[in-house]
Amino acid sequence: MTPERATERRLIEIIRRASAGGPGVRVGVGDDCAVLESDAGSLLLATTDLLIEDVHFRRRWAEPADLGWKSLAVNLSDIAAMGGRPRWALVALACPEGTSLDEAEAFFEGVLALASEHEVAVVGGDTSASPRGWIVNITLLGEATGAPLLRSTARPGDVIAVTGSLGRSAAGLALLERGAAPAGLSAEVLADMTAAHLRPRPRVGEGRWLAAAGGVTAMIDLSDGVATDLGHIAEESGVGARVGIDRLPVDAGVRAVAATLGRDALAWATGGGEDYELLLTCEPGALARLVDGLLAATGTRLTAVGEMGPTDDGVRYTDATGREVAVGPGFEHFVTGRVRG
Amino acid sequence: MTPERATERRLIEIIRRASAGGPGVRVGVGDDCAVLESDAGSLLLATTDLLIEDVHFRRRWAEPADLGWKSLAVNLSDIAAMGGRPRWALVALACPEGTSLDEAEAFFEGVLALASEHEVAVVGGDTSASPRGWIVNITLLGEATGAPLLRSTARPGDVIAVTGSLGRSAAGLALLERGAAPAGLSAEVLADMTAAHLRPRPRVGEGRWLAAAGGVTAMIDLSDGVATDLGHIAEESGVGARVGIDRLPVDAGVRAVAATLGRDALAWATGGGEDYELLLTCEPGALARLVDGLLAATGTRLTAVGEMGPTDDGVRYTDATGREVAVGPGFEHFVTGRVRG
Repeated sequence: MTPERATERRLIEIIRRASAGGPGVRVGVGDDCAVLESDAGSLLLATTDLLIEDVHFRRRWAEPADLGWKSLAVNLSDIAAMGGRPRWALVALACPEGTSLDEAEAFFEGVLALASEHEVAVVGGDTSASPRGWIVNITLLGEATGAPLLRSTARPGDVIAVTGSLGRSAAGLALLERGAAPAGLSAEVLADMTAAHLRPRPRVGEGRWLAAAGGVTAMIDLSDGVATDLGHIAEESGVGARVGIDRLPVDAGVRAVAATLGRDALAWATGGGEDYELLLTCEPGALARLVDGLLAATGTRLTAVGEMGPTDDGVRYTDATGREVAVGPGFEHFVTGRVRG
Repeated sequence: MTPERATERRLIEIIRRASAGGPGVRVGVGDDCAVLESDAGSLLLATTDLLIEDVHFRRRWAEPADLGWKSLAVNLSDIAAMGGRPRWALVALACPEGTSLDEAEAFFEGVLALASEHEVAVVGGDTSASPRGWIVNITLLGEATGAPLLRSTARPGDVIAVTGSLGRSAAGLALLERGAAPAGLSAEVLADMTAAHLRPRPRVGEGRWLAAAGGVTAMIDLSDGVATDLGHIAEESGVGARVGIDRLPVDAGVRAVAATLGRDALAWATGGGEDYELLLTCEPGALARLVDGLLAATGTRLTAVGEMGPTDDGVRYTDATGREVAVGPGFEHFVTGRVRG
């Protein structure tokens, strides 16, 4: 039996079902605009991400539900990086000819699975045919009750710290691109790494806790890798930075995958991208309190990896002996001639 | 000399320049999220539109600046249809390999030309490579100080009226698809029709005036044509509708193009789509006041074209003799197997 096609009418029905309403939603999908009610006194946060097949993901190993999840995750991570509360999503989806209704439904199920974890309501969207491949754009709106944490407010002498661990998404991508699982790795490591790539867990709770805790001076999410993203903080803040690459938190699982595949775990940690951890700067005196408090509140580690330096110092990486080492650029997408890293 | 390519760095520079800040913009492009401050007591409006080359437009006759203009226009029209005030735009752009910096800049100049007319600030965005064709997603945020005008609140007996005139965009599209200008049409008509298609002027001021005037019971913008869009009002409101096709406002220019090309001006008016006029329903007693007031305030005509009827009446079209006539579906995009009209 031929699977049912994802026609206009069917896709709109799916978006309507996905749009369940919720707090602050006066009008969801089904009118010209969503009508939303912000909490009094809050600032509005807005971010948008465009994900294109064979630029940002491959359908060979990313199922529609993974794609839906990740499309929301990358936006949640941006809200997390401001210390904000995510609230409302607008989801635009273009599918190529021959997409089945089941695939389109699975995409929205992936979006909703993560949306419900963060109490995010889908309030609008758009659907279209695509002449080639899947195209997704999600815009996420959120709120900040206190002052949002920016990229531009780090100061010389601040400690640099990252949540969780680095390189897991890049390790997962290497495994997915390889196809057949290599011998010698446990099923748990394989599942953990591929999930880190396909279904990242943005640090929303961690971001909110850190913003409220005080002492954090700047924050960004690690979408392109430490090398690129710390560069943004340094540039926007007008200060230098020095990172000890031996201090970067890299799991045993990542090291095992790298060893098995003959790859470099540290290169994944600095330039692999798509970890969606948070990188922050903080007052040196606040570090211990932040490390202990974040672990207690969310179960997530916070690891100091370096210090911000003088303006003219640039961003430098040193190894365990203190010798300066070259660190490559951030995550590269699949298309050559790309306009965005 | 080879034109400079639209690299990542260059595109980000362009978006940064496009993001000039403005009222309510605490943080624009350059951080993880835009940080925005709504007017106290206002409701937030949000709409998103995905435009894909060879689905929604053809580069053969749409220049990058036209594409930028129209991508914002379709979203402004959604805000207009709620009677809202547009405020902040997030612009995501993916360009194919070989796109020049000049083309990318022209795109943003097109966005900004229309944005500045409506005091809209570009506050965020995303850029990417595209494996095929231009892909644009704009999310527009706005505010409503009063109650937004919905699709779902028309009542039996309400008058149906439309702003401006219909079929101009479809006439322009027919001329653009034909290529060479046909003999017998004035340069003014040619320019007017093609501009209506490439650079539509959304009825933002008209929408705000109508929302504030009182007596309007429901409103929608005409993106897909009267046949489809009035169908949305009828369905969402749970009422029928009756339209006199001879009452639809169709300019002499549209009739001239249709006659010259051997096409049907009324079919363009009912199903051509992309006119971005407003279709509203109002209390019968309010009509004369709305017609006179809108013309005085904005210079735009408002024309009564029918009445809402009982629930079980469906949406019917009659000719000048009162005989019921069949009216085709709304605007169709270029891709077959499309998921959205």
